[in-house]
Amino acid sequence: MTRRVALVGGGAARFGVRAATWAELVQEAGAALFRGVPNLRAADVDSLFVGAAEPERFAFQSHVAPLAAELIGVRPSKILQRTELACASGQSAIRSAYAAIAAGLCDVAVCLGVEKMNLPSMAEANTSMACVMDRPWDGPHGATAPPFFAMVAQRHMLEFGTTEEMLAAVSEKNHRFANANPIAQFYEKSFSREKLLKLPWIAPPLRLGDCSSMTDGAAAVLLVAEERARDYTDTPAWVLGTGQYSGFHNLAHAGPLTEWTGLTRAAREALRSARLEIGDVDFAELHDCFTISEIVEYEALGLCPRGEGGRFALDGQGDRGGSIVINPRGGLLGCGHPLGATGIAQALEVYEQFASRVDPRRQVPDPEVALVHNLSGSANVHSVMIYGRTAPGAS
Amino acid sequence: MTRRVALVGGGAARFGVRAATWAELVQEAGAALFRGVPNLRAADVDSLFVGAAEPERFAFQSHVAPLAAELIGVRPSKILQRTELACASGQSAIRSAYAAIAAGLCDVAVCLGVEKMNLPSMAEANTSMACVMDRPWDGPHGATAPPFFAMVAQRHMLEFGTTEEMLAAVSEKNHRFANANPIAQFYEKSFSREKLLKLPWIAPPLRLGDCSSMTDGAAAVLLVAEERARDYTDTPAWVLGTGQYSGFHNLAHAGPLTEWTGLTRAAREALRSARLEIGDVDFAELHDCFTISEIVEYEALGLCPRGEGGRFALDGQGDRGGSIVINPRGGLLGCGHPLGATGIAQALEVYEQFASRVDPRRQVPDPEVALVHNLSGSANVHSVMIYGRTAPGAS
Repeated sequence: MTRRVALVGGGAARFGVRAATWAELVQEAGAALFRGVPNLRAADVDSLFVGAAEPERFAFQSHVAPLAAELIGVRPSKILQRTELACASGQSAIRSAYAAIAAGLCDVAVCLGVEKMNLPSMAEANTSMACVMDRPWDGPHGATAPPFFAMVAQRHMLEFGTTEEMLAAVSEKNHRFANANPIAQFYEKSFSREKLLKLPWIAPPLRLGDCSSMTDGAAAVLLVAEERARDYTDTPAWVLGTGQYSGFHNLAHAGPLTEWTGLTRAAREALRSARLEIGDVDFAELHDCFTISEIVEYEALGLCPRGEGGRFALDGQGDRGGSIVINPRGGLLGCGHPLGATGIAQALEVYEQFASRVDPRRQVPDPEVALVHNLSGSANVHSVMIYGRTAPGAS
Repeated sequence: MTRRVALVGGGAARFGVRAATWAELVQEAGAALFRGVPNLRAADVDSLFVGAAEPERFAFQSHVAPLAAELIGVRPSKILQRTELACASGQSAIRSAYAAIAAGLCDVAVCLGVEKMNLPSMAEANTSMACVMDRPWDGPHGATAPPFFAMVAQRHMLEFGTTEEMLAAVSEKNHRFANANPIAQFYEKSFSREKLLKLPWIAPPLRLGDCSSMTDGAAAVLLVAEERARDYTDTPAWVLGTGQYSGFHNLAHAGPLTEWTGLTRAAREALRSARLEIGDVDFAELHDCFTISEIVEYEALGLCPRGEGGRFALDGQGDRGGSIVINPRGGLLGCGHPLGATGIAQALEVYEQFASRVDPRRQVPDPEVALVHNLSGSANVHSVMIYGRTAPGAS
C-alpha cells in the first residue's frame, strides 16, 4: 500500500512571446507558486522535478534542475532531476514526483515546467524543434510537427469527410476559453470561426489558428504526500491514476495516422488504475497541439465513435453545455505551448477548477474528476493522468 | 510498505572514441542487456528510463526515450522518460525507476544511459560541455569542468599540502583497474605514476591523466520488483537506500571548494535509509571525474579525516588490500565518462561484483554492500545509492 498524493496548488508565468530569459521565466513561475500556495515555505520543499524539453538548444543550458532550484530559492534534500519527454516533459515531471512521493522517497515536491522558445533567430528555434522527431530518418523528409499533423488531418478528411469548419470549431472553442485565462498567450483575444478560416496556411489543411504557438512560459505546481495536503490547501486535487503508452518512433512504424491506439491504451490504464470509466470524467485537458489532434483524441478516448470527432467538435459536445468540457484552460491552441510548461499548466488548471477559482467564463460546474493528456513527438507517446476532488479510497 | 527493488543484470557498449553514432551506441547497449540477462524477453519490459545529458547538442536529437525504446526493441506500456542531471543523468534514471517500481507503478524497467561525445568538431563538443555550468554567470569566467576542478585541487594543495603524486596515485589505481575491464576506454592500457606525472597539463595542477575523457558509450541495466527478481538472476543486487543533495548552482554560492558537504549529506541520507554505516560498505563507485574529486570524496564520505584524502590515496587505502576498494570498475578516469552512461555502468559493476563475474584483477572479495556516487556540475549536486547482496529486511 503506497501513499496517496495530492496536488495542492501552484502558479504560472504569463505565456506568450516574452522578453524574459529562460531563467526569468523560472523565477516568475517560482514566485507565482509561492503566491499560489501561501503556506508554503522554501524549507518545506524536499524535491524538485523540472520538466523541460530542449533548454540545451533554446537556452544553451543543461543541468537545469539545480539551476531552477537556485532560481526559485529551494534546496532539495531528497530528489532533484529534470525529465524530458518532448511536448510531454511537464507531465513526465509530475508522474516522477507522484511515483517518488507514493514510494515514500520524498514528501513535498515542486514540479516546474519551462520553455523559452522565442529566440532572436526563429530559424534556429524551428530547427531545434526538428530534434523532437526521428531526425536522421524522418528529418530529411521534412517531418516536423506541422507537416506531420497536416498529414493526419488530410487523412482524416479523406477517410471521414472531416472539414475545415470542424477544425475551426476546435480552435474557436479553445481560443474562447483562453480569452478568459489571464496567463494564456491569447488572453483577451477572440477568433471567430470565420476569421480562423481566413488565416494563412501553415501546412494545408492546417491554418495558423489550427496550430499551437512557439511560446515562452513556465508554471509550477506542488505535489505532497497525503498527510501534508491539508497544510497547504482545503481543496486538494488527488492523483487517482496514470497511464502511458509508447508505440513507435520512426514514422515508418506509425500504423494508421488517424487511429491513436497509444492514447486509447494509456487512457484505459489510467482509468483502470483510478477505477473509473471515461464517462466519469467531468473535464479533460487534452493535448491540442493542432486542432486535428483534439479531434482524433475525442475518438481515441471513446468520447465519440471513430471518424466522428469532427462532428463532435462542430456540435459543441466538447464545449460547456456539451457532454464533457475539453480544454477549459484554453488548451495549447489558446494558451500557447511552451513545451515543458504545458503539462504543469494543465495540472494547475485541474487544481484551480476543482477549487472553483477560475474565471466564470471557463469554470466547469462542480467538477469531480479530470483527465490530463499529453502526446509527444509524432503522437507516438501518450501520457495520461486522472485527478479527483475526492481522495482515492475515501468514501 | 513499498516493494523491494532489485538490479538483476545488464550490459554495456564498449566505451571509448567510437565510430558509432548515438543510435548505434544505444543498440549495442540494448543487445548487451539482452545477452547479459538471458531470460529477459522484450515483451517483459514495461518501462524504460533513459539517462542522457545532452543529446540535443551532441546528437541533435531530443525526445530520446521513445527513440531508444524502438532502437532496443521494447514498447513500454507503463513508464517512458528521459532524465537529465548532467554527469549524474544515469543514476537519476535508476533512482526514477527505483521510485516507480517501489510505488507499484511498474515492474520490469530498463535503465539505459548513453552519451555520444566525440564529434567531428571537438570544439563544438567542448562548447556543449559548457552548458553544464551556470552558463550566463559562470560561463564568461571560463568555469567549465577542468578549470573548476583545478581550483579545487589548487585549494586542496594550499590547505592540506596535497601533492601531484597523490593525484597520480588515484589515477594509477583507476587506470590499473580499467586495464582489467573490457568495456573501459583504457582497457589494456597501463599508466605508471611516473608516466602520469609527465603527461601534459590540462588545467594546472591537473594533467591529462587527472581528467576523465570525452567518451562515447552506453550501458543498460534491468531493475525489477522483488517478486520478479528470481526470474532473471540468482544473484540480485538489492537497492537498500538512496540520498541526494543539491547545495547551489552559481559558483558564487559554492562555499568552501574543498569541503563537499552535499556529498556528506547525500551519503548520510542514503546510509540512513539503508540502515547502514559507511564502515559497512565493501566497495564504492565514486565519481572520479578528476583525481582531486576522488580525494575530496574520501573525506566527505568520512573514509578519512578532512585534508587527508591525498595521503589516503598515496597509502593505497582505496585500493585492494586497503580499507575499502574504490572504483574497481576503473572509474571515470579509466573507463571514460560518457555522461549519461556512467551511472548505469557503475550500477552494472555492482551487479557483476556481487555475482563475482568480473576479471579477478579487479574482483572485490565477497562484497556484501556497495555505494555508488555521482556528482554533477560543479560538484553542487551529489547523488548516492546503496546496494546490498542481501535483500533489505531479510534476516
